[in-house]
Amino acid sequence: MTSLDQVISKVSPLDSSAMAAARERQAQLTKPRGSLGSLEDLAVQIAGITGNAMPELTEKVILTMAADHGVAAEGVSLYPQAVTGQMVYNFLKGGAAINVLARVINARVVIVDMGVIGGFPPTDNLVCKMIDFGTADMAQGPAMTQAQAMDSLQAGVDIVEKELAAGMDIMGTGEMGIGNTTAASAIIATMTGKPVSSVAGRGTGIEEKQLIHKIAIIERALSINRPDPRDAMDVLAKVGGFEIGGLAGAMIACAANRLPVVIDGFISGSAALIAAGLCPQLSGYLIASHLSAENGHGLCLDRLGLKPLLSLNMRLGEGTGAALGIFLAEAAVKLHTQMATFNQAHITDIPEGNKQK
Amino acid sequence: MTSLDQVISKVSPLDSSAMAAARERQAQLTKPRGSLGSLEDLAVQIAGITGNAMPELTEKVILTMAADHGVAAEGVSLYPQAVTGQMVYNFLKGGAAINVLARVINARVVIVDMGVIGGFPPTDNLVCKMIDFGTADMAQGPAMTQAQAMDSLQAGVDIVEKELAAGMDIMGTGEMGIGNTTAASAIIATMTGKPVSSVAGRGTGIEEKQLIHKIAIIERALSINRPDPRDAMDVLAKVGGFEIGGLAGAMIACAANRLPVVIDGFISGSAALIAAGLCPQLSGYLIASHLSAENGHGLCLDRLGLKPLLSLNMRLGEGTGAALGIFLAEAAVKLHTQMATFNQAHITDIPEGNKQK
Repeated sequence: MTSLDQVISKVSPLDSSAMAAARERQAQLTKPRGSLGSLEDLAVQIAGITGNAMPELTEKVILTMAADHGVAAEGVSLYPQAVTGQMVYNFLKGGAAINVLARVINARVVIVDMGVIGGFPPTDNLVCKMIDFGTADMAQGPAMTQAQAMDSLQAGVDIVEKELAAGMDIMGTGEMGIGNTTAASAIIATMTGKPVSSVAGRGTGIEEKQLIHKIAIIERALSINRPDPRDAMDVLAKVGGFEIGGLAGAMIACAANRLPVVIDGFISGSAALIAAGLCPQLSGYLIASHLSAENGHGLCLDRLGLKPLLSLNMRLGEGTGAALGIFLAEAAVKLHTQMATFNQAHITDIPEGNKQK
Repeated sequence: MTSLDQVISKVSPLDSSAMAAARERQAQLTKPRGSLGSLEDLAVQIAGITGNAMPELTEKVILTMAADHGVAAEGVSLYPQAVTGQMVYNFLKGGAAINVLARVINARVVIVDMGVIGGFPPTDNLVCKMIDFGTADMAQGPAMTQAQAMDSLQAGVDIVEKELAAGMDIMGTGEMGIGNTTAASAIIATMTGKPVSSVAGRGTGIEEKQLIHKIAIIERALSINRPDPRDAMDVLAKVGGFEIGGLAGAMIACAANRLPVVIDGFISGSAALIAAGLCPQLSGYLIASHLSAENGHGLCLDRLGLKPLLSLNMRLGEGTGAALGIFLAEAAVKLHTQMATFNQAHITDIPEGNKQK
């Protein structure tokens, strides 16, 4: 078991020589230069992440972490809090959207209880990292203690180390937790310095009136707790969630082990802001799968310096966007490694003088 | 063998009762309503196309048609004309981008010679529908005769009927032909009434100076030939291409057989404009995979009333965007048919009064 500090110190810059070699190969493949657009950039980034100019992504994992949120008591969601636990059972039985998409892309889903109210009986395919039965209500005080924030991050590190031992080449992030768009909005507003009204959105589908209430609750949580945007651990503890901390820790551990991380939507984005706050080198290891329909997601990705691959008006979470992003990453890498070069295919390339990017 | 006229008359409106049933099912799946965004719309559209509220997309085909263009003699492309035939060999050997992506999504690629200069020796995995050794130079006169235009459309119909017999649930379109962004630009400018300068783009990667020349050539072709925008057959014959006619015929034949068609980029878009001109009911059967980096593609999709699923700055053709679109269609359908409902998963749905879309 490696400590969070050790893991953070292991994260290095992307491998520039692997990236240069990958760019060189892209220029020799049988297509006009640049014509695969973002898929070319993605292959080069993954070469830099893995340190391998010819990377392979065989073992794909989606990490879906669930936890409850005390702030649900403030009436910020359309669904009752019991749905968090009910959806975990749905994940375990394979009936949720993320299960279907994981089967489509041939990934395994790792389901983690980070702190769902009521807990679960011991189950083979559920990882128990329960920190507490849900966070405290952040509109009344800190969502968790500093020790719980640390424990949630460490849980993410531990899970990544276990999955790496089982075989993992790329990780996608996902989550489930009634009330967690409220926590994520508070984090994103704090870390970007933007007003809550430009960050918070309709979550599972609340009406205008309920959105105004949700914004007021988040503003109250920020004014009571005063999280320090320069201290990501403080932000996580005061207005975060156990699954958000777990995902942040997992992202850093992947980067420390030179693994690409495909982040999902709004809540995964807030976890990435926490993780990048703790580990500024992290963002090069992140691939933004999609732009969520949730308001502040674009602001969050801008802050991380990431461009989303997809924009399909999705707002489900669970890792559903990440699964589609993993598919694109795999497609990009297979194009990169399996396409013939001009020489191999005896195809006339354009004259040297006409070559641009 | 069914004639083009018979095929056109077989195309019916989408099945509204299958679509209503699919919408009803989407509302019962274990996710907030609307949270899968475009993937929900896609599942409903495919239900309407197939007339089946629980559709399956098992057999996936990418139809990649190749042909040469007389207008290449005007110096509109970066690559020599010989590359069309060389790339067909690359397709046959499995080394091109479309081969890689077809393997990733588990589709078969059907490669068709619609009229490549020099032709090919008989080859098992190449379908020969050669109309002529390339079109004539449209900057000097019509690209083809009306009879050749008709033959190219019919070739597309015939291939679809053969592939349907072999098993096909969804078709993606693709093409290869040095000079074909020039033909496609002429078609799109004609059918949308927009100026050539807002439609033509850099194709395989030409510089500004060569783009100005390409625009002048297209303007000359339009002023010499005066294609009639109300007569799609006339447009195809005067400024089209054999692969563009073949794809247009194939699209109509798929619609006649209630099969979804995933169109690729700029050239496939021009073929869709021809096909929709011949058969106004067609566009409901089309799924736009991506927005190409080529200038006028957005105008083309607007005219067809289609919204692209992806925007990855791709401009390769071959069917590469269509392959990614087929993946999304398959994902959408599997989510639709395989996810558990609230009842099945014993999950508390929101109260009836709070249900929107």
